[in-house]
Amino acid sequence: MGKRIVIIGGVAAGPKAACRVKRIMPEAEVTLIDQDNLISYGGCGIPYYVSGDVSDEKELRSTSFHMLRDEYFFEKAKGVKTLTSTRALSINRRDKTVELENVKTGVKSLIPYDTLMLATGSKPVVLPIPGRDADGVFTISDLHKAIEIKERIARGEVGKAVVIGGGAIGIEMAEALTDLWGVETTIVEYMDQLLPRIVDWPMAEALAKHLRDHKVEVYLGEAATEIVEQNGKAVGIRTGKRMLEADMVIMAVGVRPRSQLARDAGLHVSEIGAIVVNERMQTSDPSIYAAGDCIEIRHLVTGKGFFAPLGSLANKEGRVAADNMAGIPSVFKGGIGSFIMKAFDMSIGATGLSLEAAKAQGYEADVSLTAPSDRAHFFPGSEILCLGLVFDRRTRKILGLQGIGPMNDALSVRIDAAAVAISAGAAIDVLANMEMAYAPPFSTAIDAINAAAYVAENLCDGRMRQIDLRSFFAWMADFSSRPEWIALDVRHVKQAQPFVEKYGREKWISIPYDEVRDRYRELPQDKTLIIICNAGSRSFEIQVFLDAMDRKNTLVMPGGFNLVRRMDAGLVA
Amino acid sequence: MGKRIVIIGGVAAGPKAACRVKRIMPEAEVTLIDQDNLISYGGCGIPYYVSGDVSDEKELRSTSFHMLRDEYFFEKAKGVKTLTSTRALSINRRDKTVELENVKTGVKSLIPYDTLMLATGSKPVVLPIPGRDADGVFTISDLHKAIEIKERIARGEVGKAVVIGGGAIGIEMAEALTDLWGVETTIVEYMDQLLPRIVDWPMAEALAKHLRDHKVEVYLGEAATEIVEQNGKAVGIRTGKRMLEADMVIMAVGVRPRSQLARDAGLHVSEIGAIVVNERMQTSDPSIYAAGDCIEIRHLVTGKGFFAPLGSLANKEGRVAADNMAGIPSVFKGGIGSFIMKAFDMSIGATGLSLEAAKAQGYEADVSLTAPSDRAHFFPGSEILCLGLVFDRRTRKILGLQGIGPMNDALSVRIDAAAVAISAGAAIDVLANMEMAYAPPFSTAIDAINAAAYVAENLCDGRMRQIDLRSFFAWMADFSSRPEWIALDVRHVKQAQPFVEKYGREKWISIPYDEVRDRYRELPQDKTLIIICNAGSRSFEIQVFLDAMDRKNTLVMPGGFNLVRRMDAGLVA
Repeated sequence: MGKRIVIIGGVAAGPKAACRVKRIMPEAEVTLIDQDNLISYGGCGIPYYVSGDVSDEKELRSTSFHMLRDEYFFEKAKGVKTLTSTRALSINRRDKTVELENVKTGVKSLIPYDTLMLATGSKPVVLPIPGRDADGVFTISDLHKAIEIKERIARGEVGKAVVIGGGAIGIEMAEALTDLWGVETTIVEYMDQLLPRIVDWPMAEALAKHLRDHKVEVYLGEAATEIVEQNGKAVGIRTGKRMLEADMVIMAVGVRPRSQLARDAGLHVSEIGAIVVNERMQTSDPSIYAAGDCIEIRHLVTGKGFFAPLGSLANKEGRVAADNMAGIPSVFKGGIGSFIMKAFDMSIGATGLSLEAAKAQGYEADVSLTAPSDRAHFFPGSEILCLGLVFDRRTRKILGLQGIGPMNDALSVRIDAAAVAISAGAAIDVLANMEMAYAPPFSTAIDAINAAAYVAENLCDGRMRQIDLRSFFAWMADFSSRPEWIALDVRHVKQAQPFVEKYGREKWISIPYDEVRDRYRELPQDKTLIIICNAGSRSFEIQVFLDAMDRKNTLVMPGGFNLVRRMDAGLVA
Repeated sequence: MGKRIVIIGGVAAGPKAACRVKRIMPEAEVTLIDQDNLISYGGCGIPYYVSGDVSDEKELRSTSFHMLRDEYFFEKAKGVKTLTSTRALSINRRDKTVELENVKTGVKSLIPYDTLMLATGSKPVVLPIPGRDADGVFTISDLHKAIEIKERIARGEVGKAVVIGGGAIGIEMAEALTDLWGVETTIVEYMDQLLPRIVDWPMAEALAKHLRDHKVEVYLGEAATEIVEQNGKAVGIRTGKRMLEADMVIMAVGVRPRSQLARDAGLHVSEIGAIVVNERMQTSDPSIYAAGDCIEIRHLVTGKGFFAPLGSLANKEGRVAADNMAGIPSVFKGGIGSFIMKAFDMSIGATGLSLEAAKAQGYEADVSLTAPSDRAHFFPGSEILCLGLVFDRRTRKILGLQGIGPMNDALSVRIDAAAVAISAGAAIDVLANMEMAYAPPFSTAIDAINAAAYVAENLCDGRMRQIDLRSFFAWMADFSSRPEWIALDVRHVKQAQPFVEKYGREKWISIPYDEVRDRYRELPQDKTLIIICNAGSRSFEIQVFLDAMDRKNTLVMPGGFNLVRRMDAGLVA
């Protein structure tokens, strides 16, 4: 008989590892165990199942060749023994056995292993607030919950919903509820921005505006303090500031590693409870491997431990675990948290560190904000892509890239290219000359990512000085907060004039880009000029010119109107 | 007075360098010279101007903020003195002067320089065949030619056209003529495939089929031997095999560096006439820089000299030249020829080396051919992306990636990510675990590029053996050529049965994927099994299983029907 390999957890890392190890080591006896009866599903597809884009939950459990990934599939097609509805109760590391319980019959049994793998995943955080157990309160923990959510909506039981949590899952669920079903949906986020720690404020603000434009209400900086119930059923939530009616409450406030089994067995787990593994996905017990949402990996930028519960990583970790269980010395070096999501007509994504995260990690971090075309501006259908390239001024290393763009793959192109560069420890100068494939229907001769690196170089080398956008918006809201500032709008007169008329010449000056060389003497010398254009590049050119003319009291508004217009509807004259 | 910088050539590298150097060194006196009166245009946009996607040629010469990049623009907005319709006749390196001629008046003059930059570009090759000077024969050399082509078509003078050359420009022009204008268009290519040296045969074959499906006739392996003329006007072309009628003949058989000026000045040029520069874009005369289509760069994979006349590179080279002219020590390390193009509803692209090019360079090269979904297969609108990842079996280094896909950015995502990895000298194992941003509307949990690397690993490590697709098609055309081969179709019976019926059980066996473990004993032992599925992955699994059962006489058909279906319409039962 071959080696006995037991894998606990049947969603992503587990099935991937089971199939791979059986392929490499066909003589092994591989057993896949899950407490659920539905396994190997695309959990990231749940919002699209709820929205109706995916009509049947079975599609989330099927292969690309339309075969259901059930027990039969794993046994027959993959040669993997599959025990569903079976819970692992405990691990006996000395005897190398796992105690199992059939959750339907209650019958217990022992399964011996030569090598064990834990792929126990993560569980959603449930806020410890009153009403959390009321009927109508959901977390997005598994397919059963998703099916129940969809059935309630389809039965017409949900007119209003509140999503607690402005992370990716919360936002995707809000879109799903609103877009197809017309449920009046509100997102309540405790932090003062959406996608906290993932993107920085400007991108989050553009996302919030886009959601609001699509009838999703967004309340930031508000904690849900109570779920209000009537007869055991949720009817709303209370925040510090208001009461919101809701027939359904979705709690999407993050996930935690599911690691009790590992902890009970005395395996090394991190402070937040993630199983600690080495590059070969081995736990502190060399006979036990772990992969997926239950583990901690190394962050390739910071070098520190990193909890990254992402389906993309789970599969790769599972494959590396399988290789090593079968004697192939593959390694998994770590991750950087590459992320992308759809939000109505917009894509938003990030990889590596945000500016805020980078500063918190001690980097001398700065950000290049740009807003160029995603493809040749003369090509029909080109759209604006806003990018934030985070870098370290000391080492010039790229730390992260984030962006918002149209709902196509234009943002993916740049996020993924940057991810490869960041994983390799590249500097901004590498990205400046990176050869991105160019043809007008796809990109620009100077690609958006090249342009982002150019601006980063100009910032690093002290050729460009920019204004912080929060400060800019604060000033726009209250000019008296910074009486020494004045806007120099270098766009076409037709674009600038309405602003001059609205705010007055003492706040907003219009001199078109091509006239500044002749007319710069008209500019006030006692003011700080905030130079404004569409994308930031003309502003930079004017700043450099004015520097040469010894008018150095200027700041560029990075990303220009292309960016700030997406952030605040009020900024229209 | 500041440093005198003279730049010859005003299309891409020249204007980029002129503006950048003026920005960094505002005191410099920068002069941009071009023999044409139209400058700084997006030459890669010409096919889209001809097709009508871009209605006015001025759009190709405008900034994203709709300002025409003419002499006024460069002088007023950029501070660059601009001499158009001015030809540079010769360089006097000792006196540091360039002799100029006004092409309208014939007046000659001398312009002195401290630093000179050559951005003289490339010129289209004209085949030395009879009739090449006939009216109606065009090369795509500049905007004037493009305007004339479009005017002739718009006047209804062109019913039939022949494009000589199956490279990117030829194909784009063929689409432009066919798609909007309904011109009956034929491409004649001397080599036995389209895009020779850029992609390998399977991708080129899929492209040829797609063009034919869109009414572009494609003749491969045929040389144009004569342009037939009547009364000085082209009426057709003759190849070795046929006569083709044409009211217009477009010669798109490549370009050569325009370097006579450099050569006459005694600067170092390569065998094919490209100006040789160092990483700072300096020619053999340290006071003379060069950038763009007229130079040779270093190929980042082979380390050898590389003529890469691409707009994307020209701009980057121009910027690096500008930095160095202004004293900033930027370097341009080289390129890998990243390429993408639209062909009707298809995108086709490549970066690095093709399999054929890699073998010619002495690599122990192999290719992983895959055909996965571009995004989650359950997400509406997902499509098949076919990738060919070229790698070196000896070092495991990635040498190139090529692909065909739907007309969106899905292929760009993978080409650009691979380009970053290849430029960094990465191995296939790096790409296997590369973290690509995942959400169902954008990608798959195991991204197409990860899957391509998985297959490359399996090939490298001897776990997978595949059939060469040319041999497969030869066998399909004549079964007697390989009497020992038999197809094992592991797709669903419904898909396989028509093939069994068409070719007979002695050529085509159907055993579905999930039944092979139980039924493999039915398989003939004296034959080589060509295992066939939709994408290649099930075939690989079956091969591994059969290996374990000691049935090792098998070959996987890589990419499966997803790929070969795109290559040959005849392969339908």
